[in-house]
Amino acid sequence: MRSFFEPQSVAVAGVSTDPNKLGSIIFANLIENSEKGLLRARVYALNPSHSRIGNFPCYPAVKALPEVPELLVVAVPEAQTVPLIESAAASGVKAAVMITGGYAEVGKGAVERKIARLASKHGMRVLGPNTIGLVDTWSGVDSLFLRQTKRLASGEEIVSMLKPLRGEIAIITQSGHLGEVIAEDLASNGVGVRAIVGTGNQLDVSVEDVIQYFADDQNTKVIAVYLEGVRDGRRFMETAASAVRKKPVVVFKVGKTGAGARAALTHTASLVGDYEIYRAAFRQCGVVEAHTMRELVDYSISLQMLPRTSGKRLVIITNAGGVGVIAADEAARIGLQVDPPGTAAVRKFRAEFEGASFVANASLGNPIDLTASVSSDEFVKSVNYFLNLAEYDIALVLPTHHAPGIAPDIASRLSDVIVRSGKPVTCSVIGDSPLAVRLHSEFMAKRIPSFPTPEQGVGALAVMTDYGRSRVAAHAPETSTRKRTRRPSRAGLLPQKEVSDLLRSYDILEPKSVIVTSSKDLAGLRELRFPVACKLISKDLPHKTDAGGVVLGVAEASEVKAVFERLSTLAERRHLGFEGMLVQEMVKKGVELILGGVRDQAFGAVVMVGLGGTHAELVRDFKLAVAPVTPVEARRMLIGGGIGRILRGYRGGPRASVGRLSGVVSDFSRILIENPWIEQMEVNPLIASGNSMMAVDSRVFSGSGDARVGRPGDGRLLSERFR
Amino acid sequence: MRSFFEPQSVAVAGVSTDPNKLGSIIFANLIENSEKGLLRARVYALNPSHSRIGNFPCYPAVKALPEVPELLVVAVPEAQTVPLIESAAASGVKAAVMITGGYAEVGKGAVERKIARLASKHGMRVLGPNTIGLVDTWSGVDSLFLRQTKRLASGEEIVSMLKPLRGEIAIITQSGHLGEVIAEDLASNGVGVRAIVGTGNQLDVSVEDVIQYFADDQNTKVIAVYLEGVRDGRRFMETAASAVRKKPVVVFKVGKTGAGARAALTHTASLVGDYEIYRAAFRQCGVVEAHTMRELVDYSISLQMLPRTSGKRLVIITNAGGVGVIAADEAARIGLQVDPPGTAAVRKFRAEFEGASFVANASLGNPIDLTASVSSDEFVKSVNYFLNLAEYDIALVLPTHHAPGIAPDIASRLSDVIVRSGKPVTCSVIGDSPLAVRLHSEFMAKRIPSFPTPEQGVGALAVMTDYGRSRVAAHAPETSTRKRTRRPSRAGLLPQKEVSDLLRSYDILEPKSVIVTSSKDLAGLRELRFPVACKLISKDLPHKTDAGGVVLGVAEASEVKAVFERLSTLAERRHLGFEGMLVQEMVKKGVELILGGVRDQAFGAVVMVGLGGTHAELVRDFKLAVAPVTPVEARRMLIGGGIGRILRGYRGGPRASVGRLSGVVSDFSRILIENPWIEQMEVNPLIASGNSMMAVDSRVFSGSGDARVGRPGDGRLLSERFR
Repeated sequence: MRSFFEPQSVAVAGVSTDPNKLGSIIFANLIENSEKGLLRARVYALNPSHSRIGNFPCYPAVKALPEVPELLVVAVPEAQTVPLIESAAASGVKAAVMITGGYAEVGKGAVERKIARLASKHGMRVLGPNTIGLVDTWSGVDSLFLRQTKRLASGEEIVSMLKPLRGEIAIITQSGHLGEVIAEDLASNGVGVRAIVGTGNQLDVSVEDVIQYFADDQNTKVIAVYLEGVRDGRRFMETAASAVRKKPVVVFKVGKTGAGARAALTHTASLVGDYEIYRAAFRQCGVVEAHTMRELVDYSISLQMLPRTSGKRLVIITNAGGVGVIAADEAARIGLQVDPPGTAAVRKFRAEFEGASFVANASLGNPIDLTASVSSDEFVKSVNYFLNLAEYDIALVLPTHHAPGIAPDIASRLSDVIVRSGKPVTCSVIGDSPLAVRLHSEFMAKRIPSFPTPEQGVGALAVMTDYGRSRVAAHAPETSTRKRTRRPSRAGLLPQKEVSDLLRSYDILEPKSVIVTSSKDLAGLRELRFPVACKLISKDLPHKTDAGGVVLGVAEASEVKAVFERLSTLAERRHLGFEGMLVQEMVKKGVELILGGVRDQAFGAVVMVGLGGTHAELVRDFKLAVAPVTPVEARRMLIGGGIGRILRGYRGGPRASVGRLSGVVSDFSRILIENPWIEQMEVNPLIASGNSMMAVDSRVFSGSGDARVGRPGDGRLLSERFR
Repeated sequence: MRSFFEPQSVAVAGVSTDPNKLGSIIFANLIENSEKGLLRARVYALNPSHSRIGNFPCYPAVKALPEVPELLVVAVPEAQTVPLIESAAASGVKAAVMITGGYAEVGKGAVERKIARLASKHGMRVLGPNTIGLVDTWSGVDSLFLRQTKRLASGEEIVSMLKPLRGEIAIITQSGHLGEVIAEDLASNGVGVRAIVGTGNQLDVSVEDVIQYFADDQNTKVIAVYLEGVRDGRRFMETAASAVRKKPVVVFKVGKTGAGARAALTHTASLVGDYEIYRAAFRQCGVVEAHTMRELVDYSISLQMLPRTSGKRLVIITNAGGVGVIAADEAARIGLQVDPPGTAAVRKFRAEFEGASFVANASLGNPIDLTASVSSDEFVKSVNYFLNLAEYDIALVLPTHHAPGIAPDIASRLSDVIVRSGKPVTCSVIGDSPLAVRLHSEFMAKRIPSFPTPEQGVGALAVMTDYGRSRVAAHAPETSTRKRTRRPSRAGLLPQKEVSDLLRSYDILEPKSVIVTSSKDLAGLRELRFPVACKLISKDLPHKTDAGGVVLGVAEASEVKAVFERLSTLAERRHLGFEGMLVQEMVKKGVELILGGVRDQAFGAVVMVGLGGTHAELVRDFKLAVAPVTPVEARRMLIGGGIGRILRGYRGGPRASVGRLSGVVSDFSRILIENPWIEQMEVNPLIASGNSMMAVDSRVFSGSGDARVGRPGDGRLLSERFR
């Protein structure tokens, strides 16, 4: 991978006498970087039709070059690529960037596969095709073919693209254009990038490869990813989790609404969307999620600039009430703590500023509103005071420069006390005047993130807390293969008996039950304690309650007989295969949960736990995790939100042990991992009460045997999906 | 009110020889506007200590002026205000703007009340105090006292505030600073304002008064409101609903997390937050809600510039895949329809562009991705083609100017076809280069809203649809006084018998029941059909199920006796007042709903309907409306979301008539309106099945008799609340 970023030599294939051709633009940029002393690699032009391009020699083929280039930039049409790649790989070229499109994205996947084989044979890595390639602001390697100016009708040239600045944020993107505009946005804020890497169709080099590279790169402080999708979710999680331990990884995932075509055999399957799985995976491996383009930029800036924290206690300091209230609303919405300072701190503040006229009107809650009458000097001293209180971890400073008392040197004076505090602090400079622009730049130059709205200032602080917390927990699920059952002989709903055996082998208990297949053979009932529940068994009826196939509270054996006859008639009338009736001891009241598992083409086995019963889909209070789930991780899924409240015994309702349930969730997740033939699986309800966890009704669907069946639409990049 | 905006003469009290004093700045601004010919009113300076201020005469008192000024701007300290206002009001001044602070916001509410009385006696209106006052860009009235420049250490002056431009957006604000920065944000986008009005402490003129004024103002196209709170919610709704029928009203409500201190006697009260009530009120009166400062500006721009629509069918046209996907995600998230064009439309498009090379790679779903290879000419023609399809109501155009084929005149060319289409269209110009700035300005100049991110472009279109739909439904709830019961003799939980009478008088049915007060007198049971439910009656136990006070499915009279003894023992053991036992026929299975009512200090009676049962607070699927609720409005509450799905018969569960239930909700809302002594009220559960609606368990709490009791913390402005 290093050959992409720090090659000794680069050759560009497709350089032409037409300066507007991609190859010509790239070659010109590289030469310019050489002449500036930025690029140390030797640069060569390749084109069989020319012997010179401007002042430079042009070579007909890789073999004709004075040396074997370490990196080859391919900007020739698709038709000419295969022989070029073949000769380059055979000659010992280490890395190739394929800029041009016209491959898998227009249905020519076979050409890509051929190139991948050729490259792999000779150990050459390939980035692209169909990409902007890469810009390394440190080494000067640059395959960006966009022009930096355009010509107006008047003949005048206008700057159409801001050149990326050198910096510490690595941008990895599955859309070249997005990578460029993110870098441009950063540049307009005076912030640089370590590199931009567009992975294009990912013939060989994937987003995961690039994450791994920057994880180990000294000059990279933050990895920002624009993600359409991943092919190998587990690899992504491993790479990301390992990177997150070293530096923050921020991901903006798009294509949220393009759901995979998963067969909805269980409640679980209808609840679990692609995007929800990505979110669960991000949470598990400690990736910070950005929800908009704006957040990706804002979060990258604050993660690059600010010291680490995991504290949530925010103080908001302002001289204008309105923006303070907006900030407090937003902070509460996203879960930061906005508590007023303690009385001792307030008393000490009043003592320090005794006699200052602003104090009489100031509101010393949180937001701390020093009012429009505060002077620059008082504002700076007050900020210093509150920043240094041990009761706050993070701070948002809102210096409204419109107030008459605030001098234009406010940013530089505030910067000093902010930097000295050692805490993560953001500012919002609200306004669009030249003074506002100046203050914003001054803050950014001192590495204090500044934003044009209070909401952004708050969001950029919250992300520090998120990263601080997620870094500790970041891990990728292992793949265990401890034990396995054999694939059942036929695909589809597994017989109830085999489901019970499977659960039992993982220590998941079911209520005591017998299966009745004839109304004459009721001897087995003697082993049960009444009342019992009677359930129709039919492979055609996975959701028994939907069709009236469940009768609860049957009090004695004679009633069981009547129910049996009713259910067999029901099955007949509805043309359902009738396999008998399950007679099950009633479980004492408890928390009804749903425990489900599906397979995702990208991430493999995914486990869901949520509030159960027939309203599961309606309530939609559930948590996901990529399997296997450790008991610690299961606990994290269970303690928050509605599930957590229910388990703690909501409104006098039954309580259940979170510790014991975490164990069940973890065991359940191992079933999916260790029995790859399972396509979907669900326990609904699992009735939990104290330490008792009973799988009352369970369904297992076996698939075609591949561990990643059931989601034909997924695991592909958007570019493939839209074809 | 007109005297504030178009006075014949203005006097400024508090003009001084110090040019930095508020009064001096305001006087200087007014003189400047006069000299520019913008302000036609005659301008006078008031100050008893001076006879001249610069070149202008200065008068000692209102009575000493050559004429009675129509408008008085008060910029003197609080201590001098009362005599000044008194003499002004007595002299016939029509309107006064009180700039200076130091009143209710620091605990001096009494002074405000005195001024209000004086002004009201003489029919003078007062804006403020503690406000920036107003800026009218059309008449030149301007009391903004912020300096437009500040001096740098170098001695150089730097522009610190962009002057508001003349335009059609009226900004009404409860925070002066926010009004100014919103105008500044608009100005930086080349968009003007009709006026900025800061209502400050609202001693007299309220947000509602100003909304009403601009509703009837010809030059106002959009009313944008920054709202901390309202005192009279019904007045707000009436004014807003009436304004919305004429023009859009956009409100950004802050102080979302400052909950009122409402006693949580019912589930309803614990579910209903202040902000939720505001949201319900906004929806009812057709106000468009902005959730951030950014949205307030963006929405105002698109509502001002774009033609009206209520259609949701969006087409996204782009030449860069990534931004198109981001836009599609956001559109789906906020509920716009993003369907691909019909096959006929696609076929016709392909025919029109036959031979064009971009078509081969273009993705003609939605987003329509014309790819980076499209030329300016082809892009403009394609946009024109899709804009004119009848299958789309609204469009987002994303012209990525970085692509080599796009010429810098793209904005002006696109503007022509967009304007010609007559449809609401927004653009996103993504990037920060001079060309991006230029394209953005060109779109805005043609009144095509342009935004720096795809998400904003989508949001600004969705708001058009929202306004188009809400305008039709906008109304304020009437206040009916048709019938009334008398206030019960004691406050607190109403006896069960009286609750039943109350419900019956509004045609809300309860299951047949008898009250048993002794285990010897069970004769009444003969009238009931078994099985029955037995419920402990105790004023100490509003939520009976919480304490085991409900026994369901009691099969016969002898069992009732046993239950009676159990419950009376339970009551005794727990020291609960025991008033007997309600024996009620069991209701057949149905949808369990909760129907609740509370009183809000600002909005009065508020009705809630949600999914019921003991998990009501957990599920939190509920809708609110300010009472009275018409059946039509009740229907709107019931058809969407989880409630709607349940009522339609979710997963084979019971169904219930939405029409019939709408009637019950409407009747229920009238109970609250017509019996103002009710503080809180709740039916939980209301069991609905088909046309049968049974109030199974109901509670009514009577309050102190004021229609707006129970929420001491509310109905105040934030400035008051934070004291």
